[in-house]
Amino acid sequence: MARKSWRPNPRASHNRDKRPAGPRRHFRGGEQSSNEPALLYGWHTVKAALENPARRIRRLLATENAVRRLADDGIVLALEPELVRPSVIDARLGPDAVHQGLLAEADPLPSFTAAELAPDGIVLVLDQITDPHNVGAILRSAAAFAAKAIMTTARHSPEATGVLAKSASGALEVVPLVTVQNLARGLEELRESGFQLIGLDSTGDRDLAGVALRAPLALVLGAEGKGLRQLTKATCDRVARIDLPGEIKSLNVSNAAALALYVASRRLASG
Amino acid sequence: MARKSWRPNPRASHNRDKRPAGPRRHFRGGEQSSNEPALLYGWHTVKAALENPARRIRRLLATENAVRRLADDGIVLALEPELVRPSVIDARLGPDAVHQGLLAEADPLPSFTAAELAPDGIVLVLDQITDPHNVGAILRSAAAFAAKAIMTTARHSPEATGVLAKSASGALEVVPLVTVQNLARGLEELRESGFQLIGLDSTGDRDLAGVALRAPLALVLGAEGKGLRQLTKATCDRVARIDLPGEIKSLNVSNAAALALYVASRRLASG
Repeated sequence: MARKSWRPNPRASHNRDKRPAGPRRHFRGGEQSSNEPALLYGWHTVKAALENPARRIRRLLATENAVRRLADDGIVLALEPELVRPSVIDARLGPDAVHQGLLAEADPLPSFTAAELAPDGIVLVLDQITDPHNVGAILRSAAAFAAKAIMTTARHSPEATGVLAKSASGALEVVPLVTVQNLARGLEELRESGFQLIGLDSTGDRDLAGVALRAPLALVLGAEGKGLRQLTKATCDRVARIDLPGEIKSLNVSNAAALALYVASRRLASG
Repeated sequence: MARKSWRPNPRASHNRDKRPAGPRRHFRGGEQSSNEPALLYGWHTVKAALENPARRIRRLLATENAVRRLADDGIVLALEPELVRPSVIDARLGPDAVHQGLLAEADPLPSFTAAELAPDGIVLVLDQITDPHNVGAILRSAAAFAAKAIMTTARHSPEATGVLAKSASGALEVVPLVTVQNLARGLEELRESGFQLIGLDSTGDRDLAGVALRAPLALVLGAEGKGLRQLTKATCDRVARIDLPGEIKSLNVSNAAALALYVASRRLASG
């Protein structure tokens, strides 16, 4: 059975070349040992992982229905799924996880350094955004708007597993993650590679739609409530805001990320 | 102590006039009896409820720190808070709820009928979006973009409490909710009032940015995965998509709502 609609995956090929033979150098979050699997569940998330040749799946738990659906979609399985009832996956993930009959335990994907990033397109930089729903949704929007990578800090960022992977809806397999110890230094590395550094914050001096943007571009987003840290702001070339005409003056951070990607990708495409 | 930066609240004044003396006629979801309180927690959510004269708070549990912070912000309390340790609120809400020392039990706000909506501005219509995080984030964006109301179905919509209220970050007090039994009929009522009905769906025949929009405008969003139901699509004047240049071709629904609001509010403001 042939893989259906296989598309080249920049992360996948990148990974294949770079995958070290021994224990991985470092993983996102720094605290996840290579023995702890990433938990991937839900249709889009597991399907994308199965289609990513760089993703090593250790175990695949699947219901009969899910196995049939994978076969119908032409997904080739590199390992034998363990056929289970939905309740077995429920018991593993808790009652609120919408797993659609699929749970994979996988090796985490390696993360990259700022120096490994090509100076191209749009990169999102997340300044200590900790909510896994939000980071997952941001990954998904990054994949939808063809962002080249997401940079996060090793600490104060959620692991690339579970709720984050589910919210990313497959984007974890598509968008390379760059993990840095120190965000200001990571931003300086981007600047040295030629990136324009635009922070997004309600205190910004100009609406993003009115800022002259150019590629390669890094859009820097802070955590809700706290916003961008002072040093992060000071390191950016400019801090912009998104003008909101209504009574509430801030957006959910994944919504703000989607708007920033929309504005920037249209501007770069037209300019 | 005077209320700080009090702004007129269209929902609040509306509610004050319309509040029935006896038991409420109907509530969002239809299944929440007037005896079941809405649970409101977290700083923005509880602060906005305390500032909304139309919101009757039954009980307010607060930590000493939270009470001090409310006083510092000049919030007048209409009822005596019950001083508790954070663990008391933890025990009530579970360990994952970020309550910031505040939990209010309140009467649900009444919902409105389509006929009560003024033909003005932008209204969001949600076609069976069930995830309370997403509906909450959509409410927040609606308030940020000055949308006039959100229409939902009585069934297949989450209650205006708990996670939804927290994700809305105070927007529940700002954006009127219109609850209908039948969405197609609700849309027809909007059409009769003069609304242009634009559905958003990946199957749309044109990018939203290229559609001629006019006020009053209803933007209709479907659930993730399922999208808009067939009858909903057929009832819209036009179904538009949001063009995505990347590998993943769909967004989190609250991200899609924020983009649609952004595009539409800029277009209506400039046209």
